Amino acid sequence: MPGRPDVVRVAVAGASGYMGAELLRLLLVHPRVSITGVTSDRLAGEPLARAYPHLRGLTELSFHDLDAEWLAEVADLAFLALPHMESQRVVPVLRRRGVKAIDLSADYRLRDPNDYVTWYKAPHTDPAGLAEAVYGLPELHRKAIAGASLVASPGCYPAGAVLATAPLLKRGLAKLDGIVIDGKSGVSGAGRSLSLTTHFSEVNENTMAYSVEGHRHLPENIQELANLAAEAPSITFLTHLVPMTRGILSSCYARLRPDRGWDGTEASTRVRDLYRDFYAGNPFVHVTANPPQTKQTLGNNLCLVYPTVDRRTGRLIVISCLDNLVKGAAGQAVQNMNLMCGYPEGMSLEALAVYP
Amino acid sequence: MPGRPDVVRVAVAGASGYMGAELLRLLLVHPRVSITGVTSDRLAGEPLARAYPHLRGLTELSFHDLDAEWLAEVADLAFLALPHMESQRVVPVLRRRGVKAIDLSADYRLRDPNDYVTWYKAPHTDPAGLAEAVYGLPELHRKAIAGASLVASPGCYPAGAVLATAPLLKRGLAKLDGIVIDGKSGVSGAGRSLSLTTHFSEVNENTMAYSVEGHRHLPENIQELANLAAEAPSITFLTHLVPMTRGILSSCYARLRPDRGWDGTEASTRVRDLYRDFYAGNPFVHVTANPPQTKQTLGNNLCLVYPTVDRRTGRLIVISCLDNLVKGAAGQAVQNMNLMCGYPEGMSLEALAVYP
Amino acid sequence: MPGRPDVVRVAVAGASGYMGAELLRLLLVHPRVSITGVTSDRLAGEPLARAYPHLRGLTELSFHDLDAEWLAEVADLAFLALPHMESQRVVPVLRRRGVKAIDLSADYRLRDPNDYVTWYKAPHTDPAGLAEAVYGLPELHRKAIAGASLVASPGCYPAGAVLATAPLLKRGLAKLDGIVIDGKSGVSGAGRSLSLTTHFSEVNENTMAYSVEGHRHLPENIQELANLAAEAPSITFLTHLVPMTRGILSSCYARLRPDRGWDGTEASTRVRDLYRDFYAGNPFVHVTANPPQTKQTLGNNLCLVYPTVDRRTGRLIVISCLDNLVKGAAGQAVQNMNLMCGYPEGMSLEALAVYP
Amino acid sequence: MPGRPDVVRVAVAGASGYMGAELLRLLLVHPRVSITGVTSDRLAGEPLARAYPHLRGLTELSFHDLDAEWLAEVADLAFLALPHMESQRVVPVLRRRGVKAIDLSADYRLRDPNDYVTWYKAPHTDPAGLAEAVYGLPELHRKAIAGASLVASPGCYPAGAVLATAPLLKRGLAKLDGIVIDGKSGVSGAGRSLSLTTHFSEVNENTMAYSVEGHRHLPENIQELANLAAEAPSITFLTHLVPMTRGILSSCYARLRPDRGWDGTEASTRVRDLYRDFYAGNPFVHVTANPPQTKQTLGNNLCLVYPTVDRRTGRLIVISCLDNLVKGAAGQAVQNMNLMCGYPEGMSLEALAVYP
Repeated sequence: MPGRPDVVRVAVAGASGYMGAELLRLLLVHPRVSITGVTSDRLAGEPLARAYPHLRGLTELSFHDLDAEWLAEVADLAFLALPHMESQRVVPVLRRRGVKAIDLSADYRLRDPNDYVTWYKAPHTDPAGLAEAVYGLPELHRKAIAGASLVASPGCYPAGAVLATAPLLKRGLAKLDGIVIDGKSGVSGAGRSLSLTTHFSEVNENTMAYSVEGHRHLPENIQELANLAAEAPSITFLTHLVPMTRGILSSCYARLRPDRGWDGTEASTRVRDLYRDFYAGNPFVHVTANPPQTKQTLGNNLCLVYPTVDRRTGRLIVISCLDNLVKGAAGQAVQNMNLMCGYPEGMSLEALAVYP
Repeated sequence: MPGRPDVVRVAVAGASGYMGAELLRLLLVHPRVSITGVTSDRLAGEPLARAYPHLRGLTELSFHDLDAEWLAEVADLAFLALPHMESQRVVPVLRRRGVKAIDLSADYRLRDPNDYVTWYKAPHTDPAGLAEAVYGLPELHRKAIAGASLVASPGCYPAGAVLATAPLLKRGLAKLDGIVIDGKSGVSGAGRSLSLTTHFSEVNENTMAYSVEGHRHLPENIQELANLAAEAPSITFLTHLVPMTRGILSSCYARLRPDRGWDGTEASTRVRDLYRDFYAGNPFVHVTANPPQTKQTLGNNLCLVYPTVDRRTGRLIVISCLDNLVKGAAGQAVQNMNLMCGYPEGMSLEALAVYP
Repeated sequence: MPGRPDVVRVAVAGASGYMGAELLRLLLVHPRVSITGVTSDRLAGEPLARAYPHLRGLTELSFHDLDAEWLAEVADLAFLALPHMESQRVVPVLRRRGVKAIDLSADYRLRDPNDYVTWYKAPHTDPAGLAEAVYGLPELHRKAIAGASLVASPGCYPAGAVLATAPLLKRGLAKLDGIVIDGKSGVSGAGRSLSLTTHFSEVNENTMAYSVEGHRHLPENIQELANLAAEAPSITFLTHLVPMTRGILSSCYARLRPDRGWDGTEASTRVRDLYRDFYAGNPFVHVTANPPQTKQTLGNNLCLVYPTVDRRTGRLIVISCLDNLVKGAAGQAVQNMNLMCGYPEGMSLEALAVYP
Repeated sequence: MPGRPDVVRVAVAGASGYMGAELLRLLLVHPRVSITGVTSDRLAGEPLARAYPHLRGLTELSFHDLDAEWLAEVADLAFLALPHMESQRVVPVLRRRGVKAIDLSADYRLRDPNDYVTWYKAPHTDPAGLAEAVYGLPELHRKAIAGASLVASPGCYPAGAVLATAPLLKRGLAKLDGIVIDGKSGVSGAGRSLSLTTHFSEVNENTMAYSVEGHRHLPENIQELANLAAEAPSITFLTHLVPMTRGILSSCYARLRPDRGWDGTEASTRVRDLYRDFYAGNPFVHVTANPPQTKQTLGNNLCLVYPTVDRRTGRLIVISCLDNLVKGAAGQAVQNMNLMCGYPEGMSLEALAVYP
């Protein structure tokens, strides 16, 4: 099944969930992509448009079962929107057959194999792949991503929280032991699976904290920030569910290092300038002059970041937001694909926020 | 207009807003209250049931304009659900005429008159009243409230945040300089007035931080906690709007004082026990064994408090929630009234949460 | 387990769902009820307050499995909030042992046993019980309910739709063959069970029709209206899901009988007067002068009914609304219990709407 | 200010409202459009990106006041997203200066000038423009739109309701006197203006009927259907507000003409085939095999139409849905622009629904 030379043949494994659906939304209108396969063990054989009526008329594809060899046959590049522990069964086959992979699960995000035992109660079964995988946050690893054949796209919380705090730690502005990240997420982050915490009557008109004992997105946060700070920060990370479908807003609190002399009246402006400098040349991070709102990112690939200094306490506050299914998942993955294929970084990611 | 001896004649000034409506919901079924007056300058002359169709058939009252002498005439006790700066024009008249008052505005909450200049850009015009007013949080000031003739009911955020952190500071458990309070509020906290931040199409499917430069509820938080700690804590307080009508969830972060030796594996249990001990005998504070949800307080007068210790960082996390219009406003005020009148503290406040 | 003579011992079978939870909300504060048993096969042995944290502190009850003999032992009256086909297994035991029953399932609503075969694909297994059961809509059957030992509480849609149209058909005002009922329901009507149609991310920001091939609430609608009209009306009944938790609004359309001369300019007023006359003495039906809103019934036991005549087409429009879990289920059932026990009809049903 | 020959210079008058914002969302990524002016009397002088932060970085435009001569100067084609009665002050200038106009207000929709007096209580001030205007529903008037210089884009309700019922009336399938259209709309249809009916706390968890005395979108419905049926139908049209931001779902009920013999068991299939035939070649109307949901149109330009026959009553039910801001307003207008400019009809309208 050879394709046109200027078009990459792409497959989406795990296409029946929300990340899969969002990948299809972006890829179906991508001018240099041909979608050649979608998988879902549960829906194998069923037309894609039956599971997702909003794709009706746009594709003739049907779900195939999850078969790594078949994926390698039909595609030059595969997106893996699979549960954790499943991607590491598929990736070794893809690598052997020379197929590029962008994994949206947690399987290839943590550099230290021991972390998997700690957080997922099982050893990693593909340490060789793990050693080669690149963490797919272009704002920190653009060059490595462009040359990678296996990219681990970030979790939805870390995407926003790392972008909110990276400049602080890279520039040594904040203490490493006083960091609090308070995340608020819409419900689609929990996927399409059924549980009381995705039941409308339970979630609507409700706000709650969850995973209070420790959310699995914490270690990648620490890993990426430790890379920048050259030392692991101590982070309290608490996640909340708010009654909306899409969007994550993270409020990050850190103590300024007093020896840096950044606590005067101009502190907020200076911090903002530092952020703008840090993110210059990154089309999908906007450093804003006013607190951002998740609705400003609904359906687009932006991460909005607003740093300020609380003049009463001298503490730093950084607020970031993004659409958990776009810059927090599928859009980020497509941005990674564009880099890996030598396409313009923003191709097929130009859509504006759907406001209101 | 003398009433039955076992019934208090009650007026609600500013009854056309949400706090006023909520006071009426609770007072109309209170067995020892007779509502004798409601005011609204905007709606003066109009029947209450026209502004609030859900009260149809329950009351024959019409709105009167805001006239302090008239209030003093018709009522033994007045609830003031007025904008700040207006209560302090009414209260002196009520005090002169011996009418008890429960103020739901911010006008009588701060002990230090200078704070009004700082936060409201105007001097307080009733320093004598201010000197006598009692902060209306029964869990901290029950006895004083019972003997007071002027009570300042707390703001909706402080109600939950002070209850979440009071035991920590009273018992010297936490450092005073590392406190972060991240509050998430439903939209009814902004009242019935019209603005883009209460417009459905703007707020729905949206989460945002607001009042980032400093929310006016901060100083009462500090005042009450300073009372307990005998020193003013340094608090970063950030408020967020989430797309629901009722409810506030506050996530509070503090650093444990290491010299207290509370960072072992049993820390969470020990902290919870300390909280239960602190709130013993307080019917409207429940210390919970699991993270609470705002929906568990929808329409009831409870504040749910969940303290825990983040075992990775040794930091304290306390999550509290309440219905901003009940324990955060009208229910709290009725609880205060019950104490001031010698009624059972929970009278007319027994309703269960409307779940789901 | 004998109770106080002035208190009825009450059990709730199927207490783990939303109807069960709502029954408990109303019964726990009922002054002449003692709740002596709750059942749930799935949660047998578990404390009630674990399944429903908002009931914490209010009850020591634990779930029992669904055992009809045990129910008959502990209770004088049982509410059955069970799936259809299950109630008819429990009711015969209760009847034999002289225990009153209020069934909230569909099992005893239809007089004609053949209807069960048509709509539920199975014959009724308790035709004797069926023959004695009274349809539990007090506005039409108050006297029969007061003397009944088995009452079939109406479905949530029919409760509102029958009340909206009963006066029309009883008084012969409308043609029997042009009736359209367009119902819009919140999500809690689908219960606490998990499916894509109760998944927040699917339902939020979405409106859809469902059960287009025929909703099971249609036959009781026709039965009750046929009783009044002495002939079965032809009704097109279409149900819709709207993104809210509670509430049903039904818009009913009918053609006036031209021979009745009700199409003049005063038609709307005359129809409203007729409705008010019809519902005089019914405390829980309010005939309103303006179109009602579901929020005006949130948490209360009212059905609001607004009849009007479309002056352009001469057609009747009647809009009704109620809280599907209160007047549409649990509140209605408690109202029936009050009648069956000789209590005041509105006991424990006085709470006002939780607005906003 | 001459543009590139292959690009049309476009202005948006009334760009500060939701329709204006949605036009900008679609036009900013249109490959053959250059936006040369935006107006808002209220925001004149302010950068567009301050009013709409989600447009930040995409445009340097600032609001100009509403000046028809200026519009004619800067643009070849103007979209008028103005309140009714304002467009008819601007259009005569544009026509005189040879600038094409697409009016999204109601000002040029009704062929009969008397209708304006009836519905808007004022005579039309531009009868000459009115006589030339084409009703901008491409599925009915494609050829006329392509040749028009003034197009009146349909209202959001009629867009869906006319598409739902046009095949019925054109093919003589339904009686003309038994038609009921029950519309359910999200809140953005009411625009960005402030009122209690757009206040989050009033609208959330609420469903209500509104404009019960007659919605202004009725006459264009009747006009368009009368054109097809060669006789004016009698329509009862009732509009409802449901708690979501975008989307309209219309449920249409009609009686089949019995002489057409369409009431057998195959009736639904035959009606669907007739609809598919009617809409063949129309890329933005999908006749669906299952009841559609508004979420399937969120952000896209589709109208989904589902016709069926109620086998119990033989009555026709047709359900249609669309995004009120896209196919119900801005998308429709851009579709009209594409036709008027000789561009591919779907240019810039290819985006998929944002699901979930």
